[in-house]
Amino acid sequence: MSEPHRAVASFAEVRALMRALPGPDLEAGTRAAQREAQLTKPAGALGRLEELVQWLSTWQARHPPVLARPRSCVFAGNHGVAARGVSAYPAAVTAQMVQNFIRGGAAVNQLCKTFDADLRVYEMALERPTRDFTSAPAMEEDECVRAMAYGMMAVEPGLDVLCLGEMGIGNTTSAAALCLALFGGAAGDWTGPGTGVAGAALDRKVAVVQAGVERHGFHLAGAGPADPLAVLCCVGGHELAAIAGAILAARLARTPVVLDGFACTAAAAVLFSLDRHALDHCVVAHVSAEPGHRRLLDRLGKAALLDLGMRLGEASGATLALALLRAAVACHCGMATFGEAGVSGKAG
Amino acid sequence: MSEPHRAVASFAEVRALMRALPGPDLEAGTRAAQREAQLTKPAGALGRLEELVQWLSTWQARHPPVLARPRSCVFAGNHGVAARGVSAYPAAVTAQMVQNFIRGGAAVNQLCKTFDADLRVYEMALERPTRDFTSAPAMEEDECVRAMAYGMMAVEPGLDVLCLGEMGIGNTTSAAALCLALFGGAAGDWTGPGTGVAGAALDRKVAVVQAGVERHGFHLAGAGPADPLAVLCCVGGHELAAIAGAILAARLARTPVVLDGFACTAAAAVLFSLDRHALDHCVVAHVSAEPGHRRLLDRLGKAALLDLGMRLGEASGATLALALLRAAVACHCGMATFGEAGVSGKAG
Repeated sequence: MSEPHRAVASFAEVRALMRALPGPDLEAGTRAAQREAQLTKPAGALGRLEELVQWLSTWQARHPPVLARPRSCVFAGNHGVAARGVSAYPAAVTAQMVQNFIRGGAAVNQLCKTFDADLRVYEMALERPTRDFTSAPAMEEDECVRAMAYGMMAVEPGLDVLCLGEMGIGNTTSAAALCLALFGGAAGDWTGPGTGVAGAALDRKVAVVQAGVERHGFHLAGAGPADPLAVLCCVGGHELAAIAGAILAARLARTPVVLDGFACTAAAAVLFSLDRHALDHCVVAHVSAEPGHRRLLDRLGKAALLDLGMRLGEASGATLALALLRAAVACHCGMATFGEAGVSGKAG
Repeated sequence: MSEPHRAVASFAEVRALMRALPGPDLEAGTRAAQREAQLTKPAGALGRLEELVQWLSTWQARHPPVLARPRSCVFAGNHGVAARGVSAYPAAVTAQMVQNFIRGGAAVNQLCKTFDADLRVYEMALERPTRDFTSAPAMEEDECVRAMAYGMMAVEPGLDVLCLGEMGIGNTTSAAALCLALFGGAAGDWTGPGTGVAGAALDRKVAVVQAGVERHGFHLAGAGPADPLAVLCCVGGHELAAIAGAILAARLARTPVVLDGFACTAAAAVLFSLDRHALDHCVVAHVSAEPGHRRLLDRLGKAALLDLGMRLGEASGATLALALLRAAVACHCGMATFGEAGVSGKAG
């Protein structure tokens, strides 16, 4: 069913994989729709739960869809730009939270337990943050490609769904810079409180985002659209590149993906900017309280499943949305049909 | 912790219970807030999951909140007004769906299994529908009170949360009439497709709602506000009266309530119209695709937890929202504090 992902060693190889993305399995989708129409409920009455079943079947390339092996992945990276005072928390918190994930004390641990997902935490050279992107490219190409390849490794064959998230003090700054470079607008459109900055600290964060994007010559008047992989390199981060790699590998392995909040979706937007169909196998779990996220989802044409004012990252929203997937699959696979139940159909 | 509910034999006794509603346990709420502030996440980062923990603690009157015994209740009733062609399905479907619930073939069965809730189905004299409310009161007072008392019986002591829902061909017509009589506006504001009527059939449904409310003299120019219990009697239904009774009994038993969609919330609105604090122990699971529901939630000042385009009833949305309660309690009770995890707090 799924082929092992291939590692990548250069942007040229990433681009080659992007040209070979498998499409949807429309036949599996048709079988899902056919069964859905026979279940004991008015057509469409389960709303987006029905849409989720359709999506899972189509991108798992099978019907009925299966949720026996869901995995939540948290990629953790450190950001040089954190030294610019853009976060309410010190950079040491990234490593401390990784230890918290390992010991089972974070929100995502409780959510994985509640909804029966396997949790994997990927610590990405936390002692070597990316460079401060206001003064140099955050990563060189080889560093960025290594991070993408690392993310691709998270996608083993046989996973039924992949919930992706991140941890990294400073990464909403990086995510805002990615969005500004990829989509334009004003730095303030994409920059929000993150872990909780406000006032002068938020103004500083906006200025840092603006300075970073200008420093690398993205989104200048008269310039053409930026190369998305160059944007990822210059203002991204290790964990964000890994997420992009994981999304790509999941597509190749026919594993549907659930995206988390702003930073995770910004990483995904790099692939979208390379190919507008690159995220067709992804749903967005929730719209974050981080204001740039709603704007970003509009650009991607994605409607989030949940809107609960969450802004924690660490795959917490994605893992929570797994509950909706479980509900959708349980209804689709377990409900009786009109015929089986002896329930009359629609009159007239 | 919880006292057994008392049965009621008259509207006067219902009104007496309404005057003795227990309030929130603010001390339990304070303890929830104190723990929440110490957990390893930025303050507020779990959004409405934090609000749910606060609400559960306050209305269970204990901290930590417990979800060991959640129950989903489906009340089923038949409506004389169904003979007016207001539904896409024949009235026989109410009883057929009850059999489907009993055999485990409906959506709510799968959702209860997925989120580990006890399911109870209450069949309310399906062979004796309420009267067609365009020509007579749907129920007499004693019939309405019996239905409320029946709903109160669903609330055993010791339940941790009660998810309420309904099944009844014709009951979105009854719900629309309840809303029009209680809140005013135009019949078309409150009347929607229900199980799927459109065009001339929908026009007929609007006319039936208007005729019913006029027939009983509610919401006439110059008339004062209608007595909510008289409204329930005249245009309600057995299952809707039972839901109102269950909500009231749950309040007395300190059992928080999760309301389902439009018909369920319309039943709850009867209590709200008697006392604006009568639903403080309730959350609304989801906003239904039935257009009147959003308008009704605005009137009640309630923000739904989910917005997934569902419109099935049968407690399906309420049981799905149980997933959010489980997530909220798991995070609140299972997460490490900053101190336990050795994670640095907010800088500065």
